[in-house]
Amino acid sequence: MKVVKFGGSSLASGKQLEKVFQIVTADPERKVVVVSAPGKRYAEDTKVTDLLIECAELCLQNKNPKVQLDNVLGRYASIAEELRLSDAVIREIHDDLLTRMASDKSKPDRFIDLLKASGEDNNAKLVAAYFQSQGIEAHYVDPKEAGLLVSDEPGNAQALPESYERLFSLNERSGIQVFPGFFGYSLSGEVFTFSRSGSDITGSILANALKADLYENFTDVDAVYSVNPSIVQKPKEIKELTYREMRELSYAGFTVLHDEALVPAFRAGIPVNIKNTNNPAAPGTLIVNERDNTNGPVIGIASDKGFCSIYVSKYLMNREIGFGRKLLGVLEDYGLSYEHTPSGIDDVSVILRENQLDEKVMVEVIDRIKNELQADEVKVAHSLSLIMVVGEGMRRNVGTMARASKALANASVNIEMINQGSSEVSMMFGVKEVDEKRAVKALYEEFFVPVTV
Amino acid sequence: MKVVKFGGSSLASGKQLEKVFQIVTADPERKVVVVSAPGKRYAEDTKVTDLLIECAELCLQNKNPKVQLDNVLGRYASIAEELRLSDAVIREIHDDLLTRMASDKSKPDRFIDLLKASGEDNNAKLVAAYFQSQGIEAHYVDPKEAGLLVSDEPGNAQALPESYERLFSLNERSGIQVFPGFFGYSLSGEVFTFSRSGSDITGSILANALKADLYENFTDVDAVYSVNPSIVQKPKEIKELTYREMRELSYAGFTVLHDEALVPAFRAGIPVNIKNTNNPAAPGTLIVNERDNTNGPVIGIASDKGFCSIYVSKYLMNREIGFGRKLLGVLEDYGLSYEHTPSGIDDVSVILRENQLDEKVMVEVIDRIKNELQADEVKVAHSLSLIMVVGEGMRRNVGTMARASKALANASVNIEMINQGSSEVSMMFGVKEVDEKRAVKALYEEFFVPVTV
Repeated sequence: MKVVKFGGSSLASGKQLEKVFQIVTADPERKVVVVSAPGKRYAEDTKVTDLLIECAELCLQNKNPKVQLDNVLGRYASIAEELRLSDAVIREIHDDLLTRMASDKSKPDRFIDLLKASGEDNNAKLVAAYFQSQGIEAHYVDPKEAGLLVSDEPGNAQALPESYERLFSLNERSGIQVFPGFFGYSLSGEVFTFSRSGSDITGSILANALKADLYENFTDVDAVYSVNPSIVQKPKEIKELTYREMRELSYAGFTVLHDEALVPAFRAGIPVNIKNTNNPAAPGTLIVNERDNTNGPVIGIASDKGFCSIYVSKYLMNREIGFGRKLLGVLEDYGLSYEHTPSGIDDVSVILRENQLDEKVMVEVIDRIKNELQADEVKVAHSLSLIMVVGEGMRRNVGTMARASKALANASVNIEMINQGSSEVSMMFGVKEVDEKRAVKALYEEFFVPVTV
Repeated sequence: MKVVKFGGSSLASGKQLEKVFQIVTADPERKVVVVSAPGKRYAEDTKVTDLLIECAELCLQNKNPKVQLDNVLGRYASIAEELRLSDAVIREIHDDLLTRMASDKSKPDRFIDLLKASGEDNNAKLVAAYFQSQGIEAHYVDPKEAGLLVSDEPGNAQALPESYERLFSLNERSGIQVFPGFFGYSLSGEVFTFSRSGSDITGSILANALKADLYENFTDVDAVYSVNPSIVQKPKEIKELTYREMRELSYAGFTVLHDEALVPAFRAGIPVNIKNTNNPAAPGTLIVNERDNTNGPVIGIASDKGFCSIYVSKYLMNREIGFGRKLLGVLEDYGLSYEHTPSGIDDVSVILRENQLDEKVMVEVIDRIKNELQADEVKVAHSLSLIMVVGEGMRRNVGTMARASKALANASVNIEMINQGSSEVSMMFGVKEVDEKRAVKALYEEFFVPVTV
C-alpha cells in the first residue's frame, strides 16, 4: 500500500487535478491520497493558504474580508467548473468558510489555525468529489473522525503518540481515502496546524501509521538535485539517497522536503519517493534507510548563509572542567541554538544562525562570557556560510577530504572552519559568504564533473 | 636582566656545574639562577627527587630510609668533592634533611612535599657555595624570605598574586641570586611544591616578577624539534616560535617545556630561550609573542595517543536547545575533562583522554546519556591519536589543509576527525593509534622535506 501526497502546485487547477487522478488510478496500491491546499498556477499567483491567512487577520481586526473570501471560493469554483463538478461541493465549502469565520476569536492564534486549515480540508472534499465524479470510489476523510490527534500548539502542532494506532484502521476502509494535509485536532477537539509544509508531515504520519510500503511525495521537480540549480546549471539528479544524507542536505538549504516531515517515515523505515506530478514517468528520487554505494563518495553538496561565530579564548582553557558547559549555558539563557563548536586547545568558537541575535543580545552575551567565564578574548565574525558535502560513501574513501580541500584551495577559497568526524556521511566547511558560490561550484566540479582528458 | 634556569641533568655532577658556572658568568645580565635538584648522570641513574620521595614514604611507614638518605647525601658530597668545596655545605644539607625527616607526619602529602623540596633547596645552597668558592658574589635565596607565596595544594601549588610584587625586590640585591626551583611557602609558612617540572614554573614566575628581559631555560637538547625525533630521524630544529605555537605543540606530546610553566612569562610577554647546557653556543629555540613568518605555513607537528570518543546521535538534535550543555554536564558530574566536540547535524562526538575512564564510569556515563538525553545511539571508539599541525603561517595560506589531507590520503591514513577553525594556528586530525606514526611522517615530509626534482 502506498500513501501519496500532492503539493499545492499539483492541485492548483483542474488540469493539474486530472494529472493527479491519472497518477492515483494508475496504481491500485495508491490507497491514501494526502492533499495540500491549491497552490500557485503561475509565478505571480497567490496560494489559497496565504489568502486564508489574510482573511483571518482581517476578521481579527473586524474588517471585511470579502475580497479574500471571494478569491478563495473563486479558486475552488474555477477548479470545479473546469472539471464539471456539481455546485454542491462549492456550496459546502462556502458554508464551511462562513462557519469558521464566525467562530470564537478570543485566541487569535487558534482562529488563524482554524482558517488556514480549511485550505487543505476543503480541497480534500473537492478532490474526493472529483474522483467520485469519475466513477471511482473515493472518500474525504475527516482527520478528527480518523483520529489524527495533535498537541495544542498553534502553527507547530505535534502528532500525539496515540494517533498512530487510531489511524491504522484507515487500512480497512474501501476505496481511495482523500486526507487533508497540514492539521489535526487537539484532545479538546480544536484544529491545530503543523509547521509550514505541514502536508508533507501528514503524509509521513499516515505512511507510518498505516505501515505503508512507500510514501510518494509528488511535487513539481523531477528529482532532488545534487547541488542547488541556482548555483550550478543542470546539476546531476540524485536517484537514491538515505534519510541521513537527505537530513544533512536539507539542513543546509535543500528545501524540497522539510526535514522534520521525514521523521515519522524514518522511524518506521518507510522509503520516500519524491516525484514530479508533471512528469510521473520520471523515477524521481528515492529516500531509503540504506543504499548501495556505487556512485563515488559524494551524493550532494548543500550550502546555507547567515551564520556567525563567537570566538572565545582563555589560556589553559582545556584544563578547566566545566568551561564548555558554562559557555553553552550562557547561550541557552538567551534561547540561542548553536550549530557547531570547533575548538582548539585554549579556544573554542560557537557557530550560530545570525538571525537569532540582535545587537543588544550580542553585547549581553559577550559581556557575560567575558565576565562570568573570565575569557581572555571574545570576538564575533559575521557573514559566514556553511557548506555540507554529503555522502554515505565517504566512510570508505580515504581521500575525500584531500579532494575537497584541494578543490577549495584551487578556487582560492579560504576555509574558515572544518568540522568532520562525528557524522560519518558529511564534512562541513565554513567559508565567508562572498566565497560560498565559488566554493560550491568548485566542489561540484571536483565530485560530479568527469575529467575529460 | 636575565633569569636563567638549569634542569636536573645540567646539575647532575661537578663537571656539569662547571658548565653552568661558565654559562652564568659569561653574561653579566644573568643575575638570577634557578636550579633543579641533581638529575641523572647516566640513563640508569636515579634523580635526587625520586630518592627523596622514596625516603619520605619509608619515613611515613616508620621504616628506616638510611640507604636513600645516604644516596642523597652521597650525590651532593660527590659534587662538592669534585669541585673541592668545604665540608660545611654538606654538613648543612645533612642537618637540614634530618630536621625535615623529624618533622610532623600527620599530613602525609605535606610531609612528602617538604622532603621533595629539599632537593632543589639544598642544591641551591651547594651551587651558591660553589660560585662563592670561585670568587663570585653569589647568594642562596630562601623562597620564604624572598616572598614566593603559594596556595596550600600539595604537589600542585599555585603562586599567590602578591608573590610577584614581593619578589620584585630581588632586583635590588647585589651579586648572583641562586633560587631553588619547584616550591614556595604557604601563608602559614609550610612548604608546598608545584606540579612536576616545577622548576620551570619557578623560573617563569621570577622572570615575570622581576620583569626580566629574557628567561633562559637550559636543558639537554639543542632546540625544540619540529617533530618527535623518535618518529622522524634528525628533524628540523625550530629557531623561533610563538607561545601559542608552543602551547599547541606541548598539548600533544612536546614535553621539552611544561606548558603550564609558560603562563607567567606569557602573561608578561617575556621571551623564553630554550638552550643546551652542553652546547651553549647553539642559539636554541626562542619562544616569543609574535614572530616573522617566513618559513612556510607549518612550524611543528605533534601527536599524542590515548584518546577515545563518545559518539551520540539523536534525530533532530540540532533543534534541541540545551542538548550540548546537558551532555557536557553529565561528563562534568564525573569530573571528566574533554578535548573536542566535533558535531554533525544530528550527532556529536566528545573526545576525551582515555585514562580518565574506567569501565564502570564509562557504563554509567553511557547509561545517563541514553536515558537522560534520550539519545538514539551512543557508542565509544577507543585508541585514537590526535595530531596537531601547528604554525602561525596557516592563517595566510589557503592550501594548507589540502596539502595535509593529501599527504594523509597518499599514506593511506583514514582521517577519523578534523577540527579546524577555532585556533588560527593549528589544525587537528584524529586518526587511529596504529596510523599515528605513518601519519606524522607523511605530514613531516609534506611540510619540511624539500621536493627534489
